[in-house]
Amino acid sequence: MTTTAERSLASNVTKAEAWRAYFETTALLTTQLEKLMKAESGLDFGDFNLLLVLSETPGQRLRLGELAKAVAFGPGRLTYRIDQLVRRGLVERRPCPEDRRGFEAVLTPEGHRALRRARPLHARHVNDLLLDHLTDEQAQMLLEVFGPLRSRLTS
Amino acid sequence: MTTTAERSLASNVTKAEAWRAYFETTALLTTQLEKLMKAESGLDFGDFNLLLVLSETPGQRLRLGELAKAVAFGPGRLTYRIDQLVRRGLVERRPCPEDRRGFEAVLTPEGHRALRRARPLHARHVNDLLLDHLTDEQAQMLLEVFGPLRSRLTS
Repeated sequence: MTTTAERSLASNVTKAEAWRAYFETTALLTTQLEKLMKAESGLDFGDFNLLLVLSETPGQRLRLGELAKAVAFGPGRLTYRIDQLVRRGLVERRPCPEDRRGFEAVLTPEGHRALRRARPLHARHVNDLLLDHLTDEQAQMLLEVFGPLRSRLTS
Repeated sequence: MTTTAERSLASNVTKAEAWRAYFETTALLTTQLEKLMKAESGLDFGDFNLLLVLSETPGQRLRLGELAKAVAFGPGRLTYRIDQLVRRGLVERRPCPEDRRGFEAVLTPEGHRALRRARPLHARHVNDLLLDHLTDEQAQMLLEVFGPLRSRLTS
């Protein structure tokens, strides 16, 4: 007979194992993806994500504070990465039209081209590393777990 | 009628959405966890993971190369973090007994105490942020997705 306490313990053990598998695998996966992206596109993986987020906003521009939040970068790291991207001509930094004290990052045509070149590489590696190994049910479940969590963490 | 092409497209869309939800949420979750851990334990989140991995090895020691692989750090980042931990007395760096040219990291008693203090905090935040929001089935599925992937990425 299985008691409530035993079921609860089994549930906690599974959850702790699930956390470790999820967390450690993600670190490995990210490292691998970073290495492949950097080698093949010359674009740092964090930069790729910055450009991707910018490309999806109306006008391809975003206030620096909102951009930092969207990519989960601290202010120091964001400033550093944006400086690098400005230097390479992939992003412009401009005063916000709505608020002269604030700044926004704007994707340049060159930034758009760099992203367009990198996207198929990124998609291929994400498929090879993760998505091709998922069933449709597993993909659906990842969406059900991480979608609401994303809303909670950005609210 | 749903054609094979339509089903395949729907599957690809779900998988792409699952990737974005998983990837972006993980960045947010990690940032949040880092902030909480650092504020409450004084232990950087990467350091916490280093100490945790060391604590689980026989003799609480690991060659630097194997440690780097286990926590998915590049050699530069590992050297830097290990230097910090050595300075704080949480880790010792010693020549490997088996191979005089190699080095290993060893958890010190003080490192063990720091880890023991930080673990309940870490567990609480991981529960609050993620595990408490999962059903047992979802936890099981995370384990089924990320467990084999971890084996593949470390092999």
